[in-house]
Amino acid sequence: MIQTRIIPRTPSAYDPPLIIKMLFNQVTKYNPQREIVYRDLFRMNYTTFDKRVRQLANVLTEIGVKGGDTVAVMDWDSHRYLECFFAIPCLGAVLHTINVRLSPAQILYTMNHADDKVVIVHEDFVPIIEAIKDQLTTVEKFIIVSDKVYQDPNAPLVETSFRLEGEYESLLSNASDQYDFSDFDENSLATTFYTTGTTGNPKGVYFSHRQLVMHTFCLLAYFPGYRALPLDHRDVYMPITPLFHVHGWGFPYLATMLNFKQVYPGRYEPEMLLRLLLKEKVTFSHCVPTILNMLVNSPVAKQVDLSKWSVLIGGSALTKGLAKAALELGINVTQGYGMSETAPIMSVVHMTDEQLQLSIDEQLPFRTKAGKIAPFVELDIIDDDGNSLPHDGDAVGELVARGPWMSQGYYKDAEASEKLWAGGWLHTGDVAAIGTDYYVTIADRVKDVIKTGGEWVSSLDIENLLSQVEGVAESAVIGFPDPRWGERPHAILVIKPDYQGKLTPEGIKAGLQARVDSGEINKWYVPDNIKFVPEIPKTSVGKIDKKRIRVEMKELILGH
Amino acid sequence: MIQTRIIPRTPSAYDPPLIIKMLFNQVTKYNPQREIVYRDLFRMNYTTFDKRVRQLANVLTEIGVKGGDTVAVMDWDSHRYLECFFAIPCLGAVLHTINVRLSPAQILYTMNHADDKVVIVHEDFVPIIEAIKDQLTTVEKFIIVSDKVYQDPNAPLVETSFRLEGEYESLLSNASDQYDFSDFDENSLATTFYTTGTTGNPKGVYFSHRQLVMHTFCLLAYFPGYRALPLDHRDVYMPITPLFHVHGWGFPYLATMLNFKQVYPGRYEPEMLLRLLLKEKVTFSHCVPTILNMLVNSPVAKQVDLSKWSVLIGGSALTKGLAKAALELGINVTQGYGMSETAPIMSVVHMTDEQLQLSIDEQLPFRTKAGKIAPFVELDIIDDDGNSLPHDGDAVGELVARGPWMSQGYYKDAEASEKLWAGGWLHTGDVAAIGTDYYVTIADRVKDVIKTGGEWVSSLDIENLLSQVEGVAESAVIGFPDPRWGERPHAILVIKPDYQGKLTPEGIKAGLQARVDSGEINKWYVPDNIKFVPEIPKTSVGKIDKKRIRVEMKELILGH
Repeated sequence: MIQTRIIPRTPSAYDPPLIIKMLFNQVTKYNPQREIVYRDLFRMNYTTFDKRVRQLANVLTEIGVKGGDTVAVMDWDSHRYLECFFAIPCLGAVLHTINVRLSPAQILYTMNHADDKVVIVHEDFVPIIEAIKDQLTTVEKFIIVSDKVYQDPNAPLVETSFRLEGEYESLLSNASDQYDFSDFDENSLATTFYTTGTTGNPKGVYFSHRQLVMHTFCLLAYFPGYRALPLDHRDVYMPITPLFHVHGWGFPYLATMLNFKQVYPGRYEPEMLLRLLLKEKVTFSHCVPTILNMLVNSPVAKQVDLSKWSVLIGGSALTKGLAKAALELGINVTQGYGMSETAPIMSVVHMTDEQLQLSIDEQLPFRTKAGKIAPFVELDIIDDDGNSLPHDGDAVGELVARGPWMSQGYYKDAEASEKLWAGGWLHTGDVAAIGTDYYVTIADRVKDVIKTGGEWVSSLDIENLLSQVEGVAESAVIGFPDPRWGERPHAILVIKPDYQGKLTPEGIKAGLQARVDSGEINKWYVPDNIKFVPEIPKTSVGKIDKKRIRVEMKELILGH
Repeated sequence: MIQTRIIPRTPSAYDPPLIIKMLFNQVTKYNPQREIVYRDLFRMNYTTFDKRVRQLANVLTEIGVKGGDTVAVMDWDSHRYLECFFAIPCLGAVLHTINVRLSPAQILYTMNHADDKVVIVHEDFVPIIEAIKDQLTTVEKFIIVSDKVYQDPNAPLVETSFRLEGEYESLLSNASDQYDFSDFDENSLATTFYTTGTTGNPKGVYFSHRQLVMHTFCLLAYFPGYRALPLDHRDVYMPITPLFHVHGWGFPYLATMLNFKQVYPGRYEPEMLLRLLLKEKVTFSHCVPTILNMLVNSPVAKQVDLSKWSVLIGGSALTKGLAKAALELGINVTQGYGMSETAPIMSVVHMTDEQLQLSIDEQLPFRTKAGKIAPFVELDIIDDDGNSLPHDGDAVGELVARGPWMSQGYYKDAEASEKLWAGGWLHTGDVAAIGTDYYVTIADRVKDVIKTGGEWVSSLDIENLLSQVEGVAESAVIGFPDPRWGERPHAILVIKPDYQGKLTPEGIKAGLQARVDSGEINKWYVPDNIKFVPEIPKTSVGKIDKKRIRVEMKELILGH
């Protein structure tokens, strides 16, 4: 360790901690007249937002929330959720964003594991609470949330068998809008949420105030450096990533701090999303490929102008087929790369001025990369023995990460935490190459790479090929054991409605084989089996669930 | 203090400190092909810059520089200085940026006070070192810098009576370009420099790594939020604020991290600056009003296109007269506010889209404000008893500041440090109002306010009036005691060459009196005396030196 001189401090001098309050202090500074919109139900400007966050802080304080307590939220993406993003951590309490798409048993597990004390629950999720309430070990109080009150303040609420502290809007309206948030240690826990791994119980991921502030600075650093996220103060932001999923990828903290106009859509119904997007003039969103696919294939998409809309894709690989379909609708689509444990940003595609001049087809390889390593993030690739591999664009190894917002472990799980950080780097579980230009190319999940005849074949590469077959809406490729080759790729496809009956698995396979014969692609890219399915299994956050495919669809795919 | 839960850390997990290395790690990430230019003598891209910083680190390590040592620099603004901005702090050493405009005795004082161990000195400043070298108590080694070597590597260097470790460029070229910078405590001292106050010795201002990183994030936060600093990745940056003055206002750290093209002009000669600006297509600079005034009044300025150039003014008040002259040349001029002790940014003007549509005259009041409170900065105004005054745009009090990059004191001066931080806020020594829109209006320096007939009159307001009189190049207004009114304002003016003999003090005074009679301005805005002078005394960083005016020009102004 280098010996340095630590700066002398004057006893009276003040040095502020890096806490969410520092971001919240900006909310009326720049463009306080901008709006935060919840569907067609509620809208307010930032002056009101500032007051409502303080009202919520008073409500929570009055019912007994103290620093270190966990307050859980089960809500659709809304202005209320955004208020919780600020009020709860600013009290020194811990925000638990419950994944409402988990099974009731898993939700129960996460609520007990996270030590939830107070729960803010939307009417729609009351049945879940009713089912598990007798097994909740730490929860003491509930606040209920309703959408009906925006149309009729006297609308009756759903009946509950458990005691309520009150309804969110009426509690706020009775609370003072004065609240001075205190300072505390920047390494205090701010948020927690759960990831569902391949085995065992969900794992608790957690972030400190300092980590969330630093992640916000990372997003900030994209703007002036290059044409990455095409955002400026005139943009209108609508997340289409659930707020329970890694804080909506961290963008709500940025958008709020910078006083962007924000639109929260509640649930994800394609037509409603498109209508809202056009009505509020949304210019920037982010989502998983599944959602973009759903929107691009909606009949409404073809009838409206989407040329002002930029979309950042993450969570799963953006295929060239989907990117092309979006670009042809005028959507400025690019990809980023991250995961729950990395808060999430690790890399984002930056289109250069020159690349933006290319044709759509020529832009596809750039837009569908995993992206350029994010500001302040370090990425490396390592071999099986943990040795660093060259960043030459060719060498492929497990991708590992370091940076100011990387998870420091899993809550109450020392073993999984040490495994995550083996060798002092966070293991992503992905296999990748890194170029001299700092661009990351994800080959596959470590678990999904297909080892066939001595070759390591990326299931993502084959999905990319299939995505470009006309009429294919979605695809998933997985490896199954093969006595001769070790493993062989197999594919399931969802066919677009217009192409039902016009495509056959044999025809698609023959098409790929013809590309092999012409020397265009390698022979191991042709799946053994191709099966058409009505739907591809997804995880609770919309990623293709290859674990379920392997187990549930084995017989369908292999025929035995 | 609120009790929170501190985030649990896994033993193997890595959490990076906020040190300059974090910024340096970005220098080849985005646009490494961009250039760093030193006049017409030297240019390199960021890949070379990255290597040269590591070479400099090896050179310094080999001559014995260790963490905690102070390395002083006496150079013109150059690529070398920028290399020192990174290499020295990244070694855990402290960069002392010597103010070369101080007197040799003051330079000597600062070098001994700062514990300088190694000095990197330009040939031009060797005479200063020769004059003081026997009194230097801590300096052990010298490296010499020369501009001649860029034209002739074998050019003979100036003779010195003290021993040299070598010449900068040849030392670098013999050093390895591999150097892995270590981590250390983010609260380590990174830089120091000296301010000259009204009395006593220069005071040592110092900043930690964390403070400089946070200040860089502040500058970052301007970009996407609003049209403040009109910078993006295509901009070309040329500082015209000495790098010894608060790290060139912190912009070099930002510009380097984001891989902007950068141009370092060496010394400030108007024609050379304008030529360089045009040749390298500079789009953004910052400087004190004196420099802008000099450029605007250069004969060359009228012959060239300056409409792509944005200039941020700080250090002293931007008068409406100067702003108008610059705008009429097409220069996008705005103002910011800061001081050495605040690293320096406290506020910057943000022109709104609507304001940019106004006429030049209508834009003047907006562009010449002190600016909107910077991201993450807190400002307050207080009365004589330390009570906070309303932020209503009317109440005027002493401006005090807090934030993540405020000086924590003066080096080895506990008394001045406690005075700076009296009451837990940093005292700026300025009198100001703060609006509900977070806009700061500086009335005056606390010491320069003129108390006349029960009114507090801002000397800056009168200077602003005088700046708009046709033919007036510069003005300074100060108060002198008056038996009847307590104090009265007096002015000295510099007249533009074309207007010599055409203007008289009596004429200017009569012009102001006419505006009083028509009710346009208050009667206390008319100075008792107006004197024409060839030059207005300035401090070493180009600010109007009212202390010297009071002492040296009293007789001239008052006639006794």
